[in-house]
Amino acid sequence: MINTDICIIGAGPVGLFAVFEAGLLKMRCHLIDALPQIGGQLSEIYPHKPIYDIPGYPTVKAQELIDNQLKQIEPFHPTFTLGERVETVNKLEDGSFELISNEGTKIRSKVIVIAAGLGSFEPRKPAVQGLENFEGKGVSYMVKNPESFRDQRVVLAGGGDSALDWTIFLADIAKEVTLIHRSDSFRGAPDSAQKVFNLANEGRIRLLLQSNLSSVHGNGRISKIGVTDKSKVESFIEADSLIPLFGLSPKLGPIADWGLNIDKSAIEVNTFDYSTNVDGIFAIGDINTYPGKLKLILCGYHEAALMAQSAFKYVFPDQKLSFKYTTVNGINEF
Amino acid sequence: MINTDICIIGAGPVGLFAVFEAGLLKMRCHLIDALPQIGGQLSEIYPHKPIYDIPGYPTVKAQELIDNQLKQIEPFHPTFTLGERVETVNKLEDGSFELISNEGTKIRSKVIVIAAGLGSFEPRKPAVQGLENFEGKGVSYMVKNPESFRDQRVVLAGGGDSALDWTIFLADIAKEVTLIHRSDSFRGAPDSAQKVFNLANEGRIRLLLQSNLSSVHGNGRISKIGVTDKSKVESFIEADSLIPLFGLSPKLGPIADWGLNIDKSAIEVNTFDYSTNVDGIFAIGDINTYPGKLKLILCGYHEAALMAQSAFKYVFPDQKLSFKYTTVNGINEF
Ligand SMILES: Cc1cc2nc3c(=O)[nH]c(=O)nc-3n(C[C@H](O)[C@H](O)[C@H](O)COP(=O)(O)OP(=O)(O)OC[C@H]3O[C@@H](n4cnc5c(N)ncnc54)[C@H](O)[C@@H]3O)c2cc1C
Ligand SMILES: Cc1cc2nc3c(=O)[nH]c(=O)nc-3n(C[C@H](O)[C@H](O)[C@H](O)COP(=O)(O)OP(=O)(O)OC[C@H]3O[C@@H](n4cnc5c(N)ncnc54)[C@H](O)[C@@H]3O)c2cc1C
Repeated sequence: MINTDICIIGAGPVGLFAVFEAGLLKMRCHLIDALPQIGGQLSEIYPHKPIYDIPGYPTVKAQELIDNQLKQIEPFHPTFTLGERVETVNKLEDGSFELISNEGTKIRSKVIVIAAGLGSFEPRKPAVQGLENFEGKGVSYMVKNPESFRDQRVVLAGGGDSALDWTIFLADIAKEVTLIHRSDSFRGAPDSAQKVFNLANEGRIRLLLQSNLSSVHGNGRISKIGVTDKSKVESFIEADSLIPLFGLSPKLGPIADWGLNIDKSAIEVNTFDYSTNVDGIFAIGDINTYPGKLKLILCGYHEAALMAQSAFKYVFPDQKLSFKYTTVNGINEF
Repeated sequence: MINTDICIIGAGPVGLFAVFEAGLLKMRCHLIDALPQIGGQLSEIYPHKPIYDIPGYPTVKAQELIDNQLKQIEPFHPTFTLGERVETVNKLEDGSFELISNEGTKIRSKVIVIAAGLGSFEPRKPAVQGLENFEGKGVSYMVKNPESFRDQRVVLAGGGDSALDWTIFLADIAKEVTLIHRSDSFRGAPDSAQKVFNLANEGRIRLLLQSNLSSVHGNGRISKIGVTDKSKVESFIEADSLIPLFGLSPKLGPIADWGLNIDKSAIEVNTFDYSTNVDGIFAIGDINTYPGKLKLILCGYHEAALMAQSAFKYVFPDQKLSFKYTTVNGINEF
């Protein structure tokens, strides 16, 4: 059981800044994110792209912004649960909350801050019959721990950056790597694509182009994967793992079931402190909506600051809050 | 007559970011500030101090943040009127505005954005009889253009950074420099104080410690300044200019007379677009108030973004606004 002052659902830029604003007021935070890495949309969708509208940054790469934010919150030592989605939120008798993830992790907190962006990123699954039966039994849609593929026969499918990057990475770790891709060329970064072609030429991976995943087989665990080529002929590959990487798309998912007022897939909040209709639950960043709302990173930062003022009253009901400038007060690590 | 889409009153961090958000929507801005330099409180009060709560900056010096913001708005070529205070705001028949400064500068704009912080910085004036009569006739409370003191006999008074910095600077330009200070030690930076002591030892300036400005004399223009030492004996210095530098304190000033709803020296706005009760006038940053308001730089940034969406409707009444990410759309200079 993890115990914390504030449980933040979503480790995107806004969730991370909430840690900072909470930290200034001496509140501890635990973050949980469905993705295996920190950074939300920025790290998942456009890590290398420049953002131009972060105040004071004429330009900053998305991943660089996340890295800087991580540095900024270091003094407050946030803790993380990654690769797990919050499924259930229970309000306890004393007004605090219990959160339960899809993997059964339990978190107890005084306040919940939902910074869940467009929802939790869920993998796009290929339409292959019976695939679900092998989920967790050799089939996974994201790589949480690359070491778990050591000395395995791994089949990857997809043509984007994730498929290319993990193919390159696993070539050094796995016993055998196969990459299946439906076309001749890749959507991912050209130099990654070149690396994959080189690995194939060196015989270090098997590259099946103009091919599609067609069937999965196994007794309990996956053991064999069917692939069709452009003339629709099916062949089979013996394998221990299959990793279909066809991108992630965000889904509001379980958040819809927590008794919150929802308008067009966003949580309704007021602009006084970005609180929801449930006492003790706040919603900030892309996930919330109010009159005038803009889905911008810089707006989420402001929302985090105002939220923290009210969250303080839940975490320290007996203390008085005094407002101090960071320039005057400094940063007090804890 | 200056003509612009948006006239921004106040060139602090929030006014500067408003230029950026307006620029993304192709609106041109002119800024006017009572101070002779850009940067508001940051450049005037704490340029060398670190700020810790600018999102994505674990730490940034106040002046560095202003410099970065200036770089960020370069593509939109804002124009500036510095060292002048807006006195009068007239709404014209076509719904646009005419602003008039204390020096008679006229600005015509479609929208007014008040980003006036704590008000315009007004000099603290020493209580010396008849001093007002020489204002603009040899007496000035800030240095707008140091060149105007070339080859003059200048008397400065004060013990803070401004007094020290301008004494050092003018020592190279003026014919004769005297610094009057009531105590033996200075409040300003120790190394600046050391420089001033050195200049005095080298005979390059006259330093009168434990002394006070006591009287001003002249026929039309100032020509002689009375100074009392610790035994209250008055002596006189021939001078062409007197610059009392006893700090600046912000005053709401003329803003109170523009028909805006004011609550405790701040302008009431709504949080939809930070508009005031006067159509076409917005107020952002420290100058505004609403439920939950925090006087933080990062909050002013958010307010600027939402403001710009509504300002667009005044500037381009016939155009439709489409919301685009900077990462996707880039920055289009004009
Ligand atoms: C291509 C692109 C370009 C963009 N350019 C800009 C730009 O220039 N400027 C700008 O301001 N914005 C831009 N944006 C938008 C910006 O990325 C978002 O505003 C920002 O990511 C919102 O941050 P957030 O922290 O609210 O949410 P997100 O970054 O979406 O992070 C939310 C996180 O919550 C997690 N999550 C959701 N539900 C759960 C759950 N139940 N359990 C566990 N975890 C969960 C998700 O997995 C996700 O990681 C752009 C977006 C895209 C896609
Ligand atoms: C010592 C100190 C430390 C601080 N530390 C922090 C911190 O760590 N974090 C943080 O977020 N904030 C901090 N602040 C507060 C921060 O400086 C303000 O929130 C910020 O300056 C507000 O920006 P602004 O653009 O709204 O107004 P300002 O910076 O106040 O600028 C307003 C400008 O408008 C001009 N003006 C006003 N009226 C008129 C008029 N009629 N005509 C022409 N010009 C006019 C003024 O001369 C001024 O230059 C600190 C403040 C101080 C004093």
